[in-house]
Amino acid sequence: MTRAHEEVGDSPAGKYEGPPTPAAAAARVEEILGLLEGRWKLVILFQLFGGRVVRFSEFERAIPGISQKMLAQQLRQLERDGLVHRVVYAEVPPRVEYRLTPWGQSLCPVLDGLLRWAATREGLTGEVSGA
Amino acid sequence: MTRAHEEVGDSPAGKYEGPPTPAAAAARVEEILGLLEGRWKLVILFQLFGGRVVRFSEFERAIPGISQKMLAQQLRQLERDGLVHRVVYAEVPPRVEYRLTPWGQSLCPVLDGLLRWAATREGLTGEVSGA
Repeated sequence: MTRAHEEVGDSPAGKYEGPPTPAAAAARVEEILGLLEGRWKLVILFQLFGGRVVRFSEFERAIPGISQKMLAQQLRQLERDGLVHRVVYAEVPPRVEYRLTPWGQSLCPVLDGLLRWAATREGLTGEVSGA
Repeated sequence: MTRAHEEVGDSPAGKYEGPPTPAAAAARVEEILGLLEGRWKLVILFQLFGGRVVRFSEFERAIPGISQKMLAQQLRQLERDGLVHRVVYAEVPPRVEYRLTPWGQSLCPVLDGLLRWAATREGLTGEVSGA
């Protein structure tokens, strides 16, 4: 966690110190969660975790109820935010594939941590409400 | 979500397997994030992380711009959701203190993971957009 030096390349993770105040930390978390908001973004991300490469039409099949327009919009936002990488192959008809950026992929263990946290709920809260 | 059996007391963390499908995982994460939604909940949580015990009036001072009504509502919801523990001391005037439940406290490293993830953004996404 507190890595003293990190000279290999451009990762600011090594010298991460966190927001200075509770209010700043809360605002930053809120901002980060904003990246994941939107009716379909998490579904799209979970389709891509694990290094999967997915075509537009595959998303359409995998996510019942999403419209083409909405899917395109959500993918564009995820791409703009640096989570998703879009590759267009110059074929006829053009093939468009989506995958996660390394940063997007590294969200996976974080969300997994969230799921694990939620799964511990019953046991832990019981301890206190009984106290 | 689809836990087949859950007879061993209060620690499902050990045998945590996660939601079975991408859609289920996304829905679960969405549900969990719903616990943290609300204009002031994260601010309140970050005020409490680290085992701090905070009185209602201290929240009011620490969070400029929050109304008594809104503060009470957010705290009630956090209490209802098992994150915050409220203790009323039978004094005159009554003293009301808030602290995190163990489960609420265990959210801290998860949110920290989210902050760290966000902090690695520049380095990691750079790798791919240049590819």
